[in-house]
Amino acid sequence: MSRMPHDVADLSLSAAGQRRIAWADRHMPVLDSIRERFAKEKPLVGQRLAACLHVTSETANLVRTLIAGGADVRLCASNPLSTQDDVAAALVVEHGVAVFSVKGEDTASYYRHIRACLEFEPTITMDDGADLVSSLLFVARGELDGVHDEVQAFARALGEAGRKRLIAGVLGSTEETTTGVIRLRAMERDGVLRFPVIAVNDSDTKHMFDNRYGTGQSTMDGILRATNVLIAGLTVVVAGYGWCGRGVATRAHGMGARVVICEVDPVRALEAAMDGYTVMPMSEAAVIGDVFVTVTGDTRVITVEHARLMKDGAIMCNSGHFDVEIDLAGLHREAAEVFETRPFVQGFRLRSGKTVYLLAEGRLVNLSAAEGHPAVVMDMSFANQALAAEFLVQRASKLEPQVYRLPAELDQQIARLKLATMGLRIDTLTPEQEHYLASWREGT
Amino acid sequence: MSRMPHDVADLSLSAAGQRRIAWADRHMPVLDSIRERFAKEKPLVGQRLAACLHVTSETANLVRTLIAGGADVRLCASNPLSTQDDVAAALVVEHGVAVFSVKGEDTASYYRHIRACLEFEPTITMDDGADLVSSLLFVARGELDGVHDEVQAFARALGEAGRKRLIAGVLGSTEETTTGVIRLRAMERDGVLRFPVIAVNDSDTKHMFDNRYGTGQSTMDGILRATNVLIAGLTVVVAGYGWCGRGVATRAHGMGARVVICEVDPVRALEAAMDGYTVMPMSEAAVIGDVFVTVTGDTRVITVEHARLMKDGAIMCNSGHFDVEIDLAGLHREAAEVFETRPFVQGFRLRSGKTVYLLAEGRLVNLSAAEGHPAVVMDMSFANQALAAEFLVQRASKLEPQVYRLPAELDQQIARLKLATMGLRIDTLTPEQEHYLASWREGT
Amino acid sequence: MSRMPHDVADLSLSAAGQRRIAWADRHMPVLDSIRERFAKEKPLVGQRLAACLHVTSETANLVRTLIAGGADVRLCASNPLSTQDDVAAALVVEHGVAVFSVKGEDTASYYRHIRACLEFEPTITMDDGADLVSSLLFVARGELDGVHDEVQAFARALGEAGRKRLIAGVLGSTEETTTGVIRLRAMERDGVLRFPVIAVNDSDTKHMFDNRYGTGQSTMDGILRATNVLIAGLTVVVAGYGWCGRGVATRAHGMGARVVICEVDPVRALEAAMDGYTVMPMSEAAVIGDVFVTVTGDTRVITVEHARLMKDGAIMCNSGHFDVEIDLAGLHREAAEVFETRPFVQGFRLRSGKTVYLLAEGRLVNLSAAEGHPAVVMDMSFANQALAAEFLVQRASKLEPQVYRLPAELDQQIARLKLATMGLRIDTLTPEQEHYLASWREGT
Amino acid sequence: MSRMPHDVADLSLSAAGQRRIAWADRHMPVLDSIRERFAKEKPLVGQRLAACLHVTSETANLVRTLIAGGADVRLCASNPLSTQDDVAAALVVEHGVAVFSVKGEDTASYYRHIRACLEFEPTITMDDGADLVSSLLFVARGELDGVHDEVQAFARALGEAGRKRLIAGVLGSTEETTTGVIRLRAMERDGVLRFPVIAVNDSDTKHMFDNRYGTGQSTMDGILRATNVLIAGLTVVVAGYGWCGRGVATRAHGMGARVVICEVDPVRALEAAMDGYTVMPMSEAAVIGDVFVTVTGDTRVITVEHARLMKDGAIMCNSGHFDVEIDLAGLHREAAEVFETRPFVQGFRLRSGKTVYLLAEGRLVNLSAAEGHPAVVMDMSFANQALAAEFLVQRASKLEPQVYRLPAELDQQIARLKLATMGLRIDTLTPEQEHYLASWREGT
Repeated sequence: MSRMPHDVADLSLSAAGQRRIAWADRHMPVLDSIRERFAKEKPLVGQRLAACLHVTSETANLVRTLIAGGADVRLCASNPLSTQDDVAAALVVEHGVAVFSVKGEDTASYYRHIRACLEFEPTITMDDGADLVSSLLFVARGELDGVHDEVQAFARALGEAGRKRLIAGVLGSTEETTTGVIRLRAMERDGVLRFPVIAVNDSDTKHMFDNRYGTGQSTMDGILRATNVLIAGLTVVVAGYGWCGRGVATRAHGMGARVVICEVDPVRALEAAMDGYTVMPMSEAAVIGDVFVTVTGDTRVITVEHARLMKDGAIMCNSGHFDVEIDLAGLHREAAEVFETRPFVQGFRLRSGKTVYLLAEGRLVNLSAAEGHPAVVMDMSFANQALAAEFLVQRASKLEPQVYRLPAELDQQIARLKLATMGLRIDTLTPEQEHYLASWREGT
Repeated sequence: MSRMPHDVADLSLSAAGQRRIAWADRHMPVLDSIRERFAKEKPLVGQRLAACLHVTSETANLVRTLIAGGADVRLCASNPLSTQDDVAAALVVEHGVAVFSVKGEDTASYYRHIRACLEFEPTITMDDGADLVSSLLFVARGELDGVHDEVQAFARALGEAGRKRLIAGVLGSTEETTTGVIRLRAMERDGVLRFPVIAVNDSDTKHMFDNRYGTGQSTMDGILRATNVLIAGLTVVVAGYGWCGRGVATRAHGMGARVVICEVDPVRALEAAMDGYTVMPMSEAAVIGDVFVTVTGDTRVITVEHARLMKDGAIMCNSGHFDVEIDLAGLHREAAEVFETRPFVQGFRLRSGKTVYLLAEGRLVNLSAAEGHPAVVMDMSFANQALAAEFLVQRASKLEPQVYRLPAELDQQIARLKLATMGLRIDTLTPEQEHYLASWREGT
Repeated sequence: MSRMPHDVADLSLSAAGQRRIAWADRHMPVLDSIRERFAKEKPLVGQRLAACLHVTSETANLVRTLIAGGADVRLCASNPLSTQDDVAAALVVEHGVAVFSVKGEDTASYYRHIRACLEFEPTITMDDGADLVSSLLFVARGELDGVHDEVQAFARALGEAGRKRLIAGVLGSTEETTTGVIRLRAMERDGVLRFPVIAVNDSDTKHMFDNRYGTGQSTMDGILRATNVLIAGLTVVVAGYGWCGRGVATRAHGMGARVVICEVDPVRALEAAMDGYTVMPMSEAAVIGDVFVTVTGDTRVITVEHARLMKDGAIMCNSGHFDVEIDLAGLHREAAEVFETRPFVQGFRLRSGKTVYLLAEGRLVNLSAAEGHPAVVMDMSFANQALAAEFLVQRASKLEPQVYRLPAELDQQIARLKLATMGLRIDTLTPEQEHYLASWREGT
Repeated sequence: MSRMPHDVADLSLSAAGQRRIAWADRHMPVLDSIRERFAKEKPLVGQRLAACLHVTSETANLVRTLIAGGADVRLCASNPLSTQDDVAAALVVEHGVAVFSVKGEDTASYYRHIRACLEFEPTITMDDGADLVSSLLFVARGELDGVHDEVQAFARALGEAGRKRLIAGVLGSTEETTTGVIRLRAMERDGVLRFPVIAVNDSDTKHMFDNRYGTGQSTMDGILRATNVLIAGLTVVVAGYGWCGRGVATRAHGMGARVVICEVDPVRALEAAMDGYTVMPMSEAAVIGDVFVTVTGDTRVITVEHARLMKDGAIMCNSGHFDVEIDLAGLHREAAEVFETRPFVQGFRLRSGKTVYLLAEGRLVNLSAAEGHPAVVMDMSFANQALAAEFLVQRASKLEPQVYRLPAELDQQIARLKLATMGLRIDTLTPEQEHYLASWREGT
């Protein structure tokens, strides 16, 4: 173990991390069954798999599965605040994984860790937000303006031949999250993608569950752990009514909040209104909200102008992938004083005298202040990830440098496994019913 | 007017029907704005439009819009029990429309009315369940085995030349409902489709709203009007967790029921479970349910075997398009006695001594025992219908004999209009935000 | 039968009424079990019981129970719009009850029917709103200013001796509804009550169920039958957050509305806010509401000033006992035009040009436009009524002229019966648990 | 400060505790306004106030208020696991309060701390669970069998004269929680109470809010922090459908659970069923539950027999005051192995091979694994406490040794203050409306 390269906070946390991984494992039976099969079939033998994911107990169980399948795995964090240090330690100590990730790391460390994954010269990459793929493409293209120093240094060290070798070695990639898929489709459109990418996020068994029930619960959990405020009776403003936004709205409402939705898409806005929520622009919501959650995947959704309109004591947080949804720089400029209130709660005393609060520095509040998505949904998301890696090994040679989703049959298969592990049985179409659905002849 | 061919129940109901149409019109502002434009632009001039739809006050406002656009319209019912006789009368008397539809008509009348629409030799057809298109194709193909006598007689009267002329004259068709789209895709797959069809049901502004909020509310409304039972404390079993099923489940739950979902699709079943519903096969649900609703689009979802398992007093109904989801013939065979309890409530005393109740003879309970979808959702559905007719006139020559959905821009446009009429304002992407979404370069 | 005095709309409706009564009976098993016992024990023999109740199928089953107990029953309506004419006919024809009630009767007929009940010289009265008791007390006190002509005429006809005899003959009364209990407590406070009254409304098995789940569902049902509007996406304003208001708010929310609560009691207002509703004064709610429901038991809760603030198209209705909650006279004064839109929907075109709609003339919308509370809750309410009549016979001699509630044991007994008929089993305290609850000695 | 007697975990935590107290203070404006008045009026001057409460940031703000009112305060914990050590430190260091409480203290320490409060010879006691009052009465009565050694030693040290002086000095007491009120009513019934007690729990502004919204949210929060399980899709069994049970059920449902209620009271069971929950005895619920929460105030609600029936992996916790609701001793006897899984999560591997999990050792999960009720509800609960202390000083001489509730006017006053601080305005009765409510003369 000790000769394995790694950079984690404290190896002595490994026992606690191991217990946490085992607890998550208990709630990830679908991934477990894939791990058992992988252990027999070894579909990933010979693959160097670099994963840039949230380093949590659920991810640890994915990594265990990839290793069981024969892969050599290197892992770095996909967010500076989302690492569970005890899990990182356990992965190094107990599972012999080369982990590069420390909770609260600065940007330099973050990119040093990305670099460690690039140096691994992966055949498959796994991303949560597309930082690994984009860094890889920056290097491959030699397009290093504005790219982090660590990545630049790596690119120079590699040289042109090395860069060619690096990109040529990549079979393909997988992407976990909406934000990453948006970036990858932009890459595809701009013609810069060089290998196929499986948008794991696009699987029904991923986004319909993880993004909705997972983000929904864990975001509210993060808010509670950070603040201990009573949600009942508050007005919670949710920016974005995609799968994540629907999840957050459902849970905020389920805890007794009045929910306000801000959207840019008219169909989604209409859906929110008919779901019983109040719909209005952020400039109006800012005035009446008590808690604000951004889940849009876009930038500067809450601006300083909005913050100025807020009530004294308003609380802001973000559950979108990047910390760009709330204008942090603007807030700091506007603040007469910034102070710590509780862990993950910063007060910004504005020049107007009002104080607004920011959770988790605007980073994913569910992963920073709580523990991220519960294992039971990550079970399906990471079942998709594991199957996506296998799919790339089997099919990459026939795929274009495009964004793909996994075949719907895999969705059905994962859902069937999940239902079974939950003890749920469902109906099956009778031959008569199948025939009826296939026929157009029977009418009134 | 009186020279206009028609077959309605009672022309003297026309004043009441006219008031009902006006009340619906008040809640259909999007369709209204399209009607205003159509009145100016006359995009449907020269078209003979045969519509086989539920003859309700909302449909009347669609017909008014089509007429305003210049179309010559003939209307028959898409279900024997769904006609509002006062509205049918008003359409004849006040709007000069050739309507063929009587609430409670028998199958012979139903197909005589379909025939009246075929005799019109339409250039565009509108369907709700695909009965008009399938009859037309039966005739055109001379494939008359098992087809209703009225349609056969028409085909023979037409002769081969007439049949060719009939089919050649059709620009295209539109289809309103899930069941119809399933049939049309089967036609497309079997290669029998002869003109393009616009699946209006596939528009987001249709199925996300009409099928969910419309079917959800109107189905519970139909159950209440028929039975006046208290939903709170009952177990309501919903077969099918598509858009309609989700809507019915949400409303049943919102009225205090424990909801059980029966599904054949594992992803939907899993979604239902995580939405907090109980999921089980119908054979188990039959034992514990108090009220059963089928919304699957499939046949014999509730069988006699299920009925035998039910509690004494259980209530069954259907909100799927056709009356095939509950095995009616089987129930009649199994019954020692069939008796009327209240309007739209039939008791079946089974040989076991238990009595189960069937609403609206297994036909669409929301249209039979209540008034169908509220105007405010039909506003969007029929906005799509009106725009689909216009789309066919503009584009049919470039389309294949396939099933199409309307362009997403029309969805956005309808949603925008709807929001405006509801007095709701939403955010707009700033140029910076649009740029961010289009760019893949910004990461952590 | 035909010699029995009565005044109903149409005796030929009796068969339909009888079917409706049987359907309700099916859902009233607790009352049924009391009826069986009454039939054996005959506790009401010799009693003349005058009941002023909503004449519905559920009331018919109460009347059947009272008759089974040996009482001689006379029945009039407690509201001019709440009578089910077919049920009234069936009571006369099939059950030989002297019924005085016609749906849509005017005030003169209403009081003529009250008079018919007073002329019966009842030993027990049953009230829903306290009109019978108050009329009786007006007569007994000779306090006839402002009292309806019919009652005045009766008082004069009776003479002083007759009035003394009338009041002396009354064992006691029962009262069904919150409004009536408020009036009776005022009578008690003013010292005018002359006999004990059982506030059936105060039983937990009455107000926690009937007022909440019953009023909640039936009010929304009344609104749907009258208007067929889609509730999802609307703002529903509920005035009053007592048991009825909570019920209406829950159901409106369950159908997808945003709910606004108007209250005068700060504790209730706070509860509404923490239940996730918006709380504001009516003057603000008037501006944003789409549908308004009053359930306060107070007068002029919606005034003309409020109506002027409303959106064009706003819909108002009342589910409180009396038609005083919306200022009807004011609305008529303010209207440039009043017109019928649909049954139970009146449009008031205000001088401002806006039109607002009033349902069921401001009378109980659930009983006027729909069928009132479902049988399953009336089962418990009327079980309380039947037991209250028996209680009066057994105990009246020991009671003061005050307002009483039934002993809590009866509540427990009714609830136990109800649970059993629903097939629900619950836990029982073990002796150890009973001991623990009775002991104060066991601490940390 | 340092000369102040105290026993807390670590005085160096004081700064963090102070920040936490300030954060809570921000959400306790009603208590704040009382503190301001107390600071002027000094109603508690001369009182020695011993409080046995959960030592949290909210309690700290209550203590600050009592001190502002002039009281001399001594504080011990009402539960061994509920102390926030940083807050305890801050109270000692920053506010000079004699605090005796350490998170995780054993029973001996717990009663040593109670003893420290008794030695204070309080004039007023405040309890949360009645441990202080019962200990005081044990001492006063010399009834020391089965009483903890520390209390026995104190009683002996005090001598008879001292015991008389102790009890004579007590003006009265206040009680915070349902469990304590049950014990106090038993004391009253047994005739052992020696001074008046204010049941703060019985105030509407206490139990309707704190017990429901507070316990509801904080219990689910405790479960999430301890386990990070996804609630959506689970079956959560709640034992007890009082105010706390309703709160927990609402929040569990709001997070996507199917909720099962176990009750012994038939009225409450019926209410639960009509609220849409599944109702069954614990022996059946044990089989299907995933998470179990006890909130009954009774003993051995979950027994070893129940645990044996549970699924492998089932999770049990308690939010009732005492750790008697789950049979802990029985579980330990039945376990082949007991192991730590995560903080506050113990696994019990039963002899059957199944493992069940217990949170927070069966103690209040909301205070042990999370932070207890949010400040915003404790604001009202502790406003009642502060006013109860003042009430005792003003009125104790006129009160009997009974259990009292505060006058309803104080409830109204607290609710009004709370609404104002939430920015909510409500309606006021017009004179006409007040008159109407007071009059019984106006009928149909």
